[in-house]
Amino acid sequence: MNATQQLQLWGVPGLPVVRAGDDLAALLLAGLERAGLALAAGDVVVVAQKVVSKSEGRMVNLATVTPSPRALELGAIVQKDPRLVELVLGESRRVVRTAKDVLIVEHRLGFVMANAGIDQSNVAAPGGGEFALLLPEDPDGSARRLRAALAERIGVAVGIVISDSFGRPWRVGTVGVAIGAAGLRSVLDLRGQSDLFGRQLKVTVVGHGDEIAAAASLVMGQAAEACPMVLIRGLDAGGDIPAAALRRPPGEDLFR
Amino acid sequence: MNATQQLQLWGVPGLPVVRAGDDLAALLLAGLERAGLALAAGDVVVVAQKVVSKSEGRMVNLATVTPSPRALELGAIVQKDPRLVELVLGESRRVVRTAKDVLIVEHRLGFVMANAGIDQSNVAAPGGGEFALLLPEDPDGSARRLRAALAERIGVAVGIVISDSFGRPWRVGTVGVAIGAAGLRSVLDLRGQSDLFGRQLKVTVVGHGDEIAAAASLVMGQAAEACPMVLIRGLDAGGDIPAAALRRPPGEDLFR
Repeated sequence: MNATQQLQLWGVPGLPVVRAGDDLAALLLAGLERAGLALAAGDVVVVAQKVVSKSEGRMVNLATVTPSPRALELGAIVQKDPRLVELVLGESRRVVRTAKDVLIVEHRLGFVMANAGIDQSNVAAPGGGEFALLLPEDPDGSARRLRAALAERIGVAVGIVISDSFGRPWRVGTVGVAIGAAGLRSVLDLRGQSDLFGRQLKVTVVGHGDEIAAAASLVMGQAAEACPMVLIRGLDAGGDIPAAALRRPPGEDLFR
Repeated sequence: MNATQQLQLWGVPGLPVVRAGDDLAALLLAGLERAGLALAAGDVVVVAQKVVSKSEGRMVNLATVTPSPRALELGAIVQKDPRLVELVLGESRRVVRTAKDVLIVEHRLGFVMANAGIDQSNVAAPGGGEFALLLPEDPDGSARRLRAALAERIGVAVGIVISDSFGRPWRVGTVGVAIGAAGLRSVLDLRGQSDLFGRQLKVTVVGHGDEIAAAASLVMGQAAEACPMVLIRGLDAGGDIPAAALRRPPGEDLFR
């Protein structure tokens, strides 16, 4: 970082409602063109989880879901649709916390989050039924594929972050986090670097991918359907550490 | 947020090492002038906690600290200087977790954090002794004072965030968080707003101040002494909710 470091973020305008099979790379490039922007090496593109999930066909019609006895029981406790609870359980390793309106789980990918990240808001319902939207199967893989598709089309390698909004212990409100990433360092390891006075830095590992997602969230707002992609220019590019590196193994968690 | 939302962040260059009694408003304005930047209404300035603490004289010479029996006992467990542990205990309501090299406490202001946010790195030591730097007494108050000092000098009201880097449960790496704020909404309450399809938004409360701090952290890097102030332009300004609103009362914490 130099002293005149500058960072710019643009919301990519005019994206349509995304459907299963849609080509996100094409949608992104069309949106950038409308805005008079072109991708350059070192750029990072942050894409909201919802549009990635939709393009990958992760929308489930609740009418097709039969809740298990466990889902019926939990649904009564948390007062949520037992079909939704069935989907949540199918995406989770374990239930962390239940209360009225509260179902916090450990997602199969290791995220501790409400409802396994499954969303009913902002989800278009083709045919008028009730739909739910699951997280991508493999968000780091989604990021790698989008990065490769962009590189193939325009010959420029950019960083990709797939972002979501998570609640946190001890703090009020959600913040953007990186659930998938490619072509950037999701975690910055500064160990061994010294401060101005030659002391070793205490804060040595930075959740860089999460900070990128939080910054993009400022531009996306929360109606991510309207602005689900953000271009960031000016980050220290380089390296390739997936967002999986941001998930702390339970045994190493000092706050638990 | 409109579809062509743009956000710009500049690191404010050339700040000197800050000492007790220094006028942060004057340092900020001088730094901006060197960079050819001027503050405008709606701008937000993020200031690293370290320089605020230093300007407020929160540096403590460890030679002046006599550890209590409890600090000696804990110091042996966590293998830290018992004088530092004494300072940590003095800033804390309770000890959350101890292990070798680990001392996580609930700070008197409600933050759950390592070492009560007390830092020995990046702290200039006048006279050559060992010094530690405590968090500001009242970071929201610090932000209000800086905002007022700037308004008095240049007639422009900007938003202020005092930022720090916190570790988090379940996630690897620190992220920027807002420990103080003035002239902006640290928490955005979107309850009652609808999505594109008329459904009520599920994610209704956003940790806006923390997202601003995380974005600024991308520019500051971790050597915050070198770039401890960041100017952000393009945020939806308005409102005034202090960073205290980001601290969740323990009884309301669904993740605990």
